Amino acid sequence: MSQKRVLLFTGNGKGKSTAAFGMLARAVGHGMKARVIQFVKAQEGVGEVLFFTRFEEVEWDHYGKGFLPTDPESPMMEKHTQAAEFGFEEALDALESDEFDFVLLDEVCYAASKGIIPLQPLVEAIVDAGDKIIVLTGRNAPQELIDLADTVTEMKMVKHGYEQGLLSQAGVEE
Amino acid sequence: MSQKRVLLFTGNGKGKSTAAFGMLARAVGHGMKARVIQFVKAQEGVGEVLFFTRFEEVEWDHYGKGFLPTDPESPMMEKHTQAAEFGFEEALDALESDEFDFVLLDEVCYAASKGIIPLQPLVEAIVDAGDKIIVLTGRNAPQELIDLADTVTEMKMVKHGYEQGLLSQAGVEE
Repeated sequence: MSQKRVLLFTGNGKGKSTAAFGMLARAVGHGMKARVIQFVKAQEGVGEVLFFTRFEEVEWDHYGKGFLPTDPESPMMEKHTQAAEFGFEEALDALESDEFDFVLLDEVCYAASKGIIPLQPLVEAIVDAGDKIIVLTGRNAPQELIDLADTVTEMKMVKHGYEQGLLSQAGVEE
Repeated sequence: MSQKRVLLFTGNGKGKSTAAFGMLARAVGHGMKARVIQFVKAQEGVGEVLFFTRFEEVEWDHYGKGFLPTDPESPMMEKHTQAAEFGFEEALDALESDEFDFVLLDEVCYAASKGIIPLQPLVEAIVDAGDKIIVLTGRNAPQELIDLADTVTEMKMVKHGYEQGLLSQAGVEE
């Protein structure tokens, strides 16, 4: 690893997590060791999990419970916060560890924007991390995360199949 | 395959091709057979090539000669057009074939916008294609391609490591 990189994919369009998975493919292609921690998401049988968990270079966990309630006062919120707490500890460990060349925190921007993980310790852990590739995804990225990333893309939805009534499709959305 | 999908990733930000590679990972995770045809690009040792060409489900070729000259009248243009012509024939075959569930035409939007491949036959081949996932990437996507896609994302550059003098990095840009 020659240099530290922090990349962030946000916005309301399709392609945030898939861009991160594409980078993960590149990293594994170069023989790097990768850690993937997913927040919010809870899916097991999706293509990215079926695929990347085949490789011993990739350590993959998700700590999500699915869609967050729109009401932050909802009693359902607790199980989401609790799951995210486990994931957050793992994320801090991965950022600190020398074991991984590539750390993907999927949906971490969204989780932080919803307050189910704390922003400041995350910012500090990214700042303190050594030379590795760090990828952050999720909509509504907090400005503090945008500020510390070297590369930020807003995935802007021009149109989406959902709008035309298309169903979620293996190889596309899952 | 349950439904035909056409997805398009354009814009000036990072993440267009990598989002397509992430979808490719999903597709292979689901056991789909994929065809990847890259225009413009000519790189051999990049992570995505090193990685995906390991899998027998993926047939991958690139027909690029690297960066296009800015002057369309440049005599260098001919070698690019010639390379693109080979790729274009392969692309039409892949779109027509029942062999592939997933067809990725990387940088095809850019190639079409530069006139090194013809737009109308491409549009017709996509319209005529059967139920498969078709992914088109590249900046300056012609409106005709945007119109026929069901899902379009503009990858908008908020900032890019290049601007801060960062070098191209394995696992990130290559």
